[in-house]
Amino acid sequence: MADRISFEDWMQSVQTTMEETLSTLLPAATQTPERLHDAMRYAVLDGGKRVRPLLVFAAGVLFDAPHAAMARAGAAVEMIHAYSLVHDDMPCMDNDVLRRGKPTVHVQYDEATALLAGDALQSQAFTILSRQEIDPERTIQMLQILSEAAGSLGMCGGQAIDLASVGHNLSLEQLEQMHGLKTGALLEASVFLGCLCGRFPGTDEARALQAYTKAIGLAFQVVDDILDATADSETLGKTAGKDAADDKPTYVSILGLDQSRALAEKLRLDAHQALGLFDEKADRLRQLADLIVQRDK
Amino acid sequence: MADRISFEDWMQSVQTTMEETLSTLLPAATQTPERLHDAMRYAVLDGGKRVRPLLVFAAGVLFDAPHAAMARAGAAVEMIHAYSLVHDDMPCMDNDVLRRGKPTVHVQYDEATALLAGDALQSQAFTILSRQEIDPERTIQMLQILSEAAGSLGMCGGQAIDLASVGHNLSLEQLEQMHGLKTGALLEASVFLGCLCGRFPGTDEARALQAYTKAIGLAFQVVDDILDATADSETLGKTAGKDAADDKPTYVSILGLDQSRALAEKLRLDAHQALGLFDEKADRLRQLADLIVQRDK
Repeated sequence: MADRISFEDWMQSVQTTMEETLSTLLPAATQTPERLHDAMRYAVLDGGKRVRPLLVFAAGVLFDAPHAAMARAGAAVEMIHAYSLVHDDMPCMDNDVLRRGKPTVHVQYDEATALLAGDALQSQAFTILSRQEIDPERTIQMLQILSEAAGSLGMCGGQAIDLASVGHNLSLEQLEQMHGLKTGALLEASVFLGCLCGRFPGTDEARALQAYTKAIGLAFQVVDDILDATADSETLGKTAGKDAADDKPTYVSILGLDQSRALAEKLRLDAHQALGLFDEKADRLRQLADLIVQRDK
Repeated sequence: MADRISFEDWMQSVQTTMEETLSTLLPAATQTPERLHDAMRYAVLDGGKRVRPLLVFAAGVLFDAPHAAMARAGAAVEMIHAYSLVHDDMPCMDNDVLRRGKPTVHVQYDEATALLAGDALQSQAFTILSRQEIDPERTIQMLQILSEAAGSLGMCGGQAIDLASVGHNLSLEQLEQMHGLKTGALLEASVFLGCLCGRFPGTDEARALQAYTKAIGLAFQVVDDILDATADSETLGKTAGKDAADDKPTYVSILGLDQSRALAEKLRLDAHQALGLFDEKADRLRQLADLIVQRDK
């Protein structure tokens, strides 16, 4: 690796950068309307593994991207992710009360504030990205990628399919399609945002990164399902066993635990294989694939 | 006027253009997830006066903007407006069941679908704008303007202040600040999006347009309050008398009906005065100021 520091230290440094960047790019809680800004900060700061910003940085390193551009892109994608969690937790959706070990936003504040905080976080993500100080063509490309990944043919669409699936049997293919939209689209966007912070990728590079993100996107969800079925709420920082309780189809409910674990490992190897054309500058992406599969929360 | 057609015919032609453009730029209701796409189309199509797109076109004409660019910018701002109505109508916000003479989205579909449709419409607005085929610098400027107008220092922030104001006495100044964010920010964005479809405005031009939008933004709200107090639900296409029932401060509750009407007329004249430096190419903006004040629904 060019920078020689351990994966753990690198992750830590990205997470620290992100906490500072997000705090700077969110309106202060003392600014009117205070309650809304307080809720936005509550939803975003001091929590989460920052998987999406880590992907931005890991891909950015590979494309020699400037640090400030990666931090800004990472903040934008993390705000989209955070807004989606706020809305997903609301009573009309998953009705969850615990997130990252803390009361969810509508519990800590109220439903109207949660709705508005999510809405405003989505706007803020695009404001932040539109203020990228890089080549305008690449900035516009980033805005296209992030907005499409967030919308009805991406994350929101996956969420809609997920809701419709409660109490239904899904095939493995349908489950993959749903998660590809719900989780995969934003993970893929993170990788491409990172690379666009540096330069436009070539065709082969783009294809390789697409295969990589497809593998880690699915792996991410398979492992989420495994953890939901096996870990306790304290470890997860959110309500465990919720999928089964909600009668939601999962990899574990379709494949069983052992086959789900085998699938996660296969996807981890797929991710490594997809990166074959890159040298050791892609090691952060490789290490993130390992992390996504081998995490315990 | 350059194009010589009457104001009514011009409005009609913009509205027809917008209906076609919005229909084209929204995912088909046959595309997965169907229910979500159906709800998005229901929320946006076949309804509304399209005041914001009319402002885009009126300002665009003044700056010799290409038709296709104005249609796209108008669609983006209208999707932001439509998403905000869907979320505002939800039970945790205004809990309204009627909009544009039809059941609101959460009534027609369900709350989760309304939440997601609103979220996805916001994303779609930025997708559409990021696909503008004009100078990238102006496209980025538009994305900044629209996202800031939509966010916590714009529309969402105004909505938060509005919610917090229920049952409280607001000064006229506080009421103005709230509406400046809740309604004014997006109307101002519409005008500047229109002008950026043509070119960057000069400093004096920008200042004049800002004064114009400030006046029409306030006028819009004053007239809304007058109509809420005086018109019936059938004429409005939404529940009348709702502000008083909800104990919300309004211009009518603070100033009374006569003074509110006088204020609306004063603001109409302010809007005309602000446009003093422009020739007859600004007539559509002048006519829209008249329309906003003199409408009866």
